[in-house]
Amino acid sequence: MSQIRRIVTAMPENSETPLDDLHGWNTPTNRFFVRNHFAVPCIDLTTWQLTITGCVANPMQWTYEKLIEAPERSLFATIECAGNGRSFLQPRAAGVQWGAGAVANAEWTGIPLHLLLKQAGLRPEAVELLFQGADYGREDGHPHTMHFARSLPLGKAMHPDTLLATHMNGEPLQPNHGFPLRLLVPGWYGVANVKWLHRIEVLNHPFHGYFQSTKYTVADPSSTRRHIVRGGLIKSEILGPGPGRLLVPGPVRISGLAWSGEKPVALVEVSTDGGRQFSPATLIGPQAPYSWVMWEYHWEAARPGSYKLLSRAVSQDGMVQPREHETHYEGYQVHYSRAVTVVVQASSP
Amino acid sequence: MSQIRRIVTAMPENSETPLDDLHGWNTPTNRFFVRNHFAVPCIDLTTWQLTITGCVANPMQWTYEKLIEAPERSLFATIECAGNGRSFLQPRAAGVQWGAGAVANAEWTGIPLHLLLKQAGLRPEAVELLFQGADYGREDGHPHTMHFARSLPLGKAMHPDTLLATHMNGEPLQPNHGFPLRLLVPGWYGVANVKWLHRIEVLNHPFHGYFQSTKYTVADPSSTRRHIVRGGLIKSEILGPGPGRLLVPGPVRISGLAWSGEKPVALVEVSTDGGRQFSPATLIGPQAPYSWVMWEYHWEAARPGSYKLLSRAVSQDGMVQPREHETHYEGYQVHYSRAVTVVVQASSP
Repeated sequence: MSQIRRIVTAMPENSETPLDDLHGWNTPTNRFFVRNHFAVPCIDLTTWQLTITGCVANPMQWTYEKLIEAPERSLFATIECAGNGRSFLQPRAAGVQWGAGAVANAEWTGIPLHLLLKQAGLRPEAVELLFQGADYGREDGHPHTMHFARSLPLGKAMHPDTLLATHMNGEPLQPNHGFPLRLLVPGWYGVANVKWLHRIEVLNHPFHGYFQSTKYTVADPSSTRRHIVRGGLIKSEILGPGPGRLLVPGPVRISGLAWSGEKPVALVEVSTDGGRQFSPATLIGPQAPYSWVMWEYHWEAARPGSYKLLSRAVSQDGMVQPREHETHYEGYQVHYSRAVTVVVQASSP
Repeated sequence: MSQIRRIVTAMPENSETPLDDLHGWNTPTNRFFVRNHFAVPCIDLTTWQLTITGCVANPMQWTYEKLIEAPERSLFATIECAGNGRSFLQPRAAGVQWGAGAVANAEWTGIPLHLLLKQAGLRPEAVELLFQGADYGREDGHPHTMHFARSLPLGKAMHPDTLLATHMNGEPLQPNHGFPLRLLVPGWYGVANVKWLHRIEVLNHPFHGYFQSTKYTVADPSSTRRHIVRGGLIKSEILGPGPGRLLVPGPVRISGLAWSGEKPVALVEVSTDGGRQFSPATLIGPQAPYSWVMWEYHWEAARPGSYKLLSRAVSQDGMVQPREHETHYEGYQVHYSRAVTVVVQASSP
């Protein structure tokens, strides 16, 4: 039987999508990975409000009723957790030990953020927007109780595809996906897509909160600075055949997914000899901005033996999926080509 | 509260999609309209087989296990019942009295039919493929118990987008949507998309069954012949504001959907004066082959009064949505622009 989600940690819920059991491009909501830092907050819609404060001409409160009557927009976007694939790293990196499945694709519907910001009237000194979730608690190694909070630069916040999402796959958000409202930042790692969003503050200075400047940052190899995890990197996964699969000589369909943050995937290549030679795969199924693409490659497995399969994706802006983990990313942005070893046995006599 | 589906007839189930409550482009499975002719058949997967017989070199049986291991393909397609909108006709037409909601959009995954037909080997005398469902019963006015069955011409059957669909919106088909297998004929009216498919027969002659030559046919105004209902016609619907809605002077967002069978929608226009003048609407949200498109139009409702709103779609091959029902279609292919009357009241003092 197929698994709905694989639980990685139970409290708070961190669970991932069993990628090898996907049929189709759009991930059903009950299979969409969950990455939560604190317990799911209790929301009372009768008193719930979204507030917009800070460097604005008109501070505002929006009720849920008013939000869902606003002009809405729908788009598909793949969201990947910045720590996805962490469990494959050697040596082990700190953090939730995700397999390959903290990534999924869904349709998101909501009001474009820039329409609200126009009504609020950004003042000229605005440089960033801070998004606060209703979820709060304590993180190991940090002394204070805090809300989950992240900021966006003005440019991405004002992009017409950045949404205050009320619906996921045509239904109101589920509680573990941020009901009643989450930020949808297409092409960026999941951490930017603040769930249970209830407060937006327009800042005249950069934000340096725990989830912005301590967690979810990567080293800069050429300086002592650290960078914030932002747009997604080029990546592909082989979904079939699975690791260790026994095959017989003959045609083998190698299939998988590829995604690339804000830019489309241009090309996926497949190697059946551990990365010496690569041949282009065929992109199949639906294609849309910000969304993963399915691919397949027909391999003629001629001789018995052990084979190391690899996929390698290239984005339309020329990013190439690396062969090894970039170690300065530590436990984040794990996007190297991970080999799948299969065994071709002699045909049955 | 929102309705899941509106029941039109309970036995067999015929239920429609509440269009005015949609949020997003892809219809959730539990909101997707159901059009069944007979009771949902009981399927035992352990004995279930798909058989391919008739004018083929290799007659075949496929188990479900084998089918879901075949190379699969995913695409989105809007399906509309050929009788959708029938209840709006004057005088009343015979048949299920559908409102506007026997139309919905979903992702479909399955094996392309042409791959199976290649394995079966079509013989040169093949002209049509007959698809039989496992559902059977009696229809009023017809003496015999029969299976539901429809045929396709070879060209459409061999099209790479014509699927033997096992999954809908990423999950195995629900029983009332044809589990374990349905035909997916993108761009054609629902009747062609045979549910509970268990038998394909390759014919050397045209099929003339009840659902092919008696039901689901339309008159030819220039002869005594009747035509089979096939590809979908250009159509649009206003979803908001709803009929009879009271508005105040100021900006009003008119929004809706448009679809066009096998061809994309090129243009949607909106009239607020009963059809004298039309202005172009904006197409918004995801766009994909065979799928409806969302649109919106910003109207400045200046003066109090009663207004007749109309939308009119044009397909990329130049079909224009008509102003009135084409009466030779009788109770099928109802695709004229249906007016929505709203009242703009004086502003509150």
